[in-house]
Amino acid sequence: MSIKVYLLDGGDLLMDQSLITWNHGMGSTKRIPVFSVFIDHPDGKVLFDTGFDLEQARKDLPFEEPEQSSEQTIPVQLGKIGVKPGDIDILVNSHLHFDHCGANHLFSQAENIVHKQELREAFSPETFERLGYNRGLFDFPDRDYHLIEGDYEVLPGIQLIFTPGHTVGHYSLLVELDSGPVLYTADAAWCRENLEHDHLMGLHHDPLAMLCSFQRLKQLIAVRKPTLLYPHDLEDYHHYKKAPDYYV
Amino acid sequence: MSIKVYLLDGGDLLMDQSLITWNHGMGSTKRIPVFSVFIDHPDGKVLFDTGFDLEQARKDLPFEEPEQSSEQTIPVQLGKIGVKPGDIDILVNSHLHFDHCGANHLFSQAENIVHKQELREAFSPETFERLGYNRGLFDFPDRDYHLIEGDYEVLPGIQLIFTPGHTVGHYSLLVELDSGPVLYTADAAWCRENLEHDHLMGLHHDPLAMLCSFQRLKQLIAVRKPTLLYPHDLEDYHHYKKAPDYYV
Repeated sequence: MSIKVYLLDGGDLLMDQSLITWNHGMGSTKRIPVFSVFIDHPDGKVLFDTGFDLEQARKDLPFEEPEQSSEQTIPVQLGKIGVKPGDIDILVNSHLHFDHCGANHLFSQAENIVHKQELREAFSPETFERLGYNRGLFDFPDRDYHLIEGDYEVLPGIQLIFTPGHTVGHYSLLVELDSGPVLYTADAAWCRENLEHDHLMGLHHDPLAMLCSFQRLKQLIAVRKPTLLYPHDLEDYHHYKKAPDYYV
Repeated sequence: MSIKVYLLDGGDLLMDQSLITWNHGMGSTKRIPVFSVFIDHPDGKVLFDTGFDLEQARKDLPFEEPEQSSEQTIPVQLGKIGVKPGDIDILVNSHLHFDHCGANHLFSQAENIVHKQELREAFSPETFERLGYNRGLFDFPDRDYHLIEGDYEVLPGIQLIFTPGHTVGHYSLLVELDSGPVLYTADAAWCRENLEHDHLMGLHHDPLAMLCSFQRLKQLIAVRKPTLLYPHDLEDYHHYKKAPDYYV
C-alpha cells in the first residue's frame, strides 16, 4: 500500500493583510483557508492538525469572521474517505493555535504528538499570544501528550521538520510519496508570498527564528523540489487536491 | 551648576497605528513627533540622539511623509540655547534607526557612544529592519564609536539603561535632576499606551526582549517615580517642555 495524503477542508477566516505580511498592507483584508492533513500510511493513520472549533472561534475571535459549514468539520471530511475519528492512530499538532487544534478533543484514543515547549507556552502564553491559544482546545484530563523536540520521524516517510518562529515549538510536515515528496509548511509560512519575498507573518513569537525557518524550508524546497502546500494561501488553495481526492 | 535637560524638536512622521500598537489599529494613521535630548551637565555637554535627516527620510521613507521645518533642525534647536554643534562633548545614540541618528554627521568632534551589537546590526540588518537603518547616517571614515554593552553611566547622574527589543542594542536615558529623576524611554516604548497596556510596537527586533524591557521600565517608574518622556507620543508631547525651556 502506498502512502496517501488527503487535505481536509476546514472553513476560512478573515485576516488583515498585515497579519500575513508584517507591516505591509495594513487596513486591507482577505479570507484565508484552514485545513488539516490526513495521511493514510501502511503502518497507521496519521492526522496532522485539526482546524478550528467554530463556536470557540466565533466567541473569542469574532473579528476574524470564522466560516465553517457542517461539511467542513473533521468528522465529515474524514467520513468522505471512510475514516472515523476513532480510527486515527497518531495526531500531530504543528502547533497549538486555535485554528490547528480545534478538534483535538475528538482524538482521545490517538497518540498526540506536540513540541514540548509549545505545550508549555500554550498553558502560559506571552501577552501578545493570548488570542492564539485557548486551553479548552488542548487541555484534557485524559490526554498524555507525546512531547518531542527537534526533527522527528513519525512513521517511515513522515518527517516533522522543526520550524519555530511563528510559535516557539512549530513543526512543518514532509511526506515521501511514490510520486515524490510533499511539503506542508504549516504556519512556518502562511502563504507563497511569505517564503518567496522573505515577508514575515505579522503574528510571530520570534521573527529571527522565523527567518531561520524560512531559510531552512527554502533550502529544502530547492534541493528536494517537493509538492508545496501552504496553510493559508487562498489563491494556491484553489489548486490543491482536497479529500476525497489525494496525493499519492 | 545644576544638570539641565532640553528637548530639541525635530519634526514629525506619519505612522500606521499598527506600527505603534502591533496588530492593532491597522489602516488608521497618526503623526508622531521626533525629538532629541540635550543635557547640559557640569562635566560636559551631552546630546542623546539627533533626529532624522529630512532629505534621506523623504527619499527612503516617503510614505512616512516626513515634515521638518528649518527651525526643527539640531543646529537651530541648539542655537536657541546658545550651543553650537562643535560644543557637544558626548553624543549618545539610543539606537541607530534613521530618526535617531540623522544629524550624527554634525558631531565628528564628540565621543559617540552606541551599543556594540547595535552598530554591527546597523551595518548588516535583518531583512525586516532594512528601512530602519541607513549606512550614510552613521558610517563616517573619521568616526571611532565608543561601543558599550549593558547599563552605563555617561557622567554622574546620566545613566543609560539597556532596553533591547525594538532593536538589538537599545538604550533608554535616566537623568538625575535637582527636582528628581527624568526617564526618557527612547524607542523602548514609543507611547504611553505601549507601557500602560503592554502593547508592543509593530516594529521590533525581538518581541520577548521588548516585553522584558517594558517590565524593567515599569518597575523603574514605580520605584523612582521619574518625570516620564516618550519619544513618539503626540498627545504627551504637547505637554513636554521644549527648548529653550528645560527640566532642571
